[in-house]
Amino acid sequence: MSEGTGKKAIVLLSGGLDSTTVVAMAHAQGYAVYALSFDYGQVHKAELHAAARVAKSQNVAQHAIIKLDLAALAHSALTGKGDVPKDRSLEEIGEGVPVTYVPARNTVFLSLALAWAESLGATDIFIGVNALDYSGYPDCRPEFIHAFETMANLATKIGTDGQRITIHTPLISMTKAQIVQAGIALGVDYSITTTCYDASDDGAACGSCDACLLRRRGFEEGGIADPTLYRGLTE
Amino acid sequence: MSEGTGKKAIVLLSGGLDSTTVVAMAHAQGYAVYALSFDYGQVHKAELHAAARVAKSQNVAQHAIIKLDLAALAHSALTGKGDVPKDRSLEEIGEGVPVTYVPARNTVFLSLALAWAESLGATDIFIGVNALDYSGYPDCRPEFIHAFETMANLATKIGTDGQRITIHTPLISMTKAQIVQAGIALGVDYSITTTCYDASDDGAACGSCDACLLRRRGFEEGGIADPTLYRGLTE
Repeated sequence: MSEGTGKKAIVLLSGGLDSTTVVAMAHAQGYAVYALSFDYGQVHKAELHAAARVAKSQNVAQHAIIKLDLAALAHSALTGKGDVPKDRSLEEIGEGVPVTYVPARNTVFLSLALAWAESLGATDIFIGVNALDYSGYPDCRPEFIHAFETMANLATKIGTDGQRITIHTPLISMTKAQIVQAGIALGVDYSITTTCYDASDDGAACGSCDACLLRRRGFEEGGIADPTLYRGLTE
Repeated sequence: MSEGTGKKAIVLLSGGLDSTTVVAMAHAQGYAVYALSFDYGQVHKAELHAAARVAKSQNVAQHAIIKLDLAALAHSALTGKGDVPKDRSLEEIGEGVPVTYVPARNTVFLSLALAWAESLGATDIFIGVNALDYSGYPDCRPEFIHAFETMANLATKIGTDGQRITIHTPLISMTKAQIVQAGIALGVDYSITTTCYDASDDGAACGSCDACLLRRRGFEEGGIADPTLYRGLTE
C-alpha cells in the first residue's frame, strides 16, 4: 500500500466490506489514499472503529473523520429513529427504498469529499456504491453519480481550471461475490470490517439485518470463508 | 411573515444582506421558511448572531444551525487560514477566484439543505447566490445551480417519486442595488444583518473588505440610506 507517493484520491470509507475493498482498489491503481469517514450520529460506533482499523491496516496517507450532526434534520433507522429490519428475503431487500435510508446521504458525503479534494488539489474521488445489491437507494445509481460528477466540475476551481474531477465507482456493477473475490485477491482482511446495521460496539454482527444477509451471501457465492464475527455464534 | 401555513421551503441563511432578502422573498411567495445556517469555523460568530436575529425578525417556521468542521479540510480566509483583503477596487473584486473561497461551499451547503428538504418532504430550496457581483465563485453560476438541481432530483426519493426539487435563485441576475431595493419593498430591516468578512462580535462592519464594499455600493446605487453599523464611524 502506498503512502503519499501516487496521485491523491479521496476514498469514502465507512469501514464496511464495500468501501474497504475500494481503498484496496484505489491503492492498486497507484493512488495515495485520503480516507474520509463520517460520524453522523450512528447508533453504534462500531462502524467508525472498523474504518480506523481499515485505514491503519491499509496504510492510507490520511484518515479524516468529519463529525456531522444530521440527526437534527434526518429520520432514519441508521441514526436511531427507527427499527432495523431483520431476516428479510433478498427480494424484500431489493424492493423500494430501505427504511435505513439517510436523506441525501451520498450527496452530502460526496460534497464533503469534493471539498477535501479541492483543498488537496486532488481530482479523484472513490465511492463504493453498488447498483445491484442496493437498487432501492436512488443515490447509488450510475445516473446519480454521473450527475454529481457534472455538478462537481462546475462547482469548483479545479473543475473549471481545465482539470477534470472524476467520481470512481469501481463496485457499481459488481455482485457482492465478485467484490469479495476482488478484495481477497488484493489482500484485504475482511475480518476487521463491519457491515452490520446493528453491530455491537466490539464490531460483532447480528447476522440477520439486510447488510449482514447481503454480506453473508457474498462470501457464500464467492466461495470465500466468511471471517465475520457474528454474535451468539462465537460465544 | 408566515409560520407553517404555506408550502415548506429551505432557505440558506448566512445572516448577510443577500440571504436575508431571500428569506423575505420566499415568505412573499407564500412559503413557510425553514432557515438553515452553518457554523463552519468562521473566524467570528457575528454572522451566526445576525442569522439568528434575521430568523427571529422574519418569524421563520424553524431555524437550524448545523455545526460543520470544514476547517480540517479547507484552507480559506473565512475559516481563519489567510488574510481578508481590504480596500480593493471593484475591478479587483471581480477578478479570479477570491481568497475567501471555501472549497465546494455551496455544494456542501445545498447538499445539507437537500437532506433537510427530503426529511421535511419539501421540494423547494432557496439560495442567495448572485452571478453579477461574485463572478469569481464557480459555485454561484447558473450552470452550477442547474447541474445541482439535476443531481438533486436523481439523488432523492422525492426527486424520483414524481415530484420535482427546485433550487430557487431569486437574486442571481440582480445587482446589489436592485437586491436592496427589493428587500426594502418587502420590509427587510438591513440594520440587523451582517455581511462583513471581518465583522466584530457585535456585528460592526469593517467597511473596507470586498463584502462591505459591494454592500455599501448597493445602498448607494439603490438610493437607500445605509443602516450598517461600521466600526470607527460610530464610536
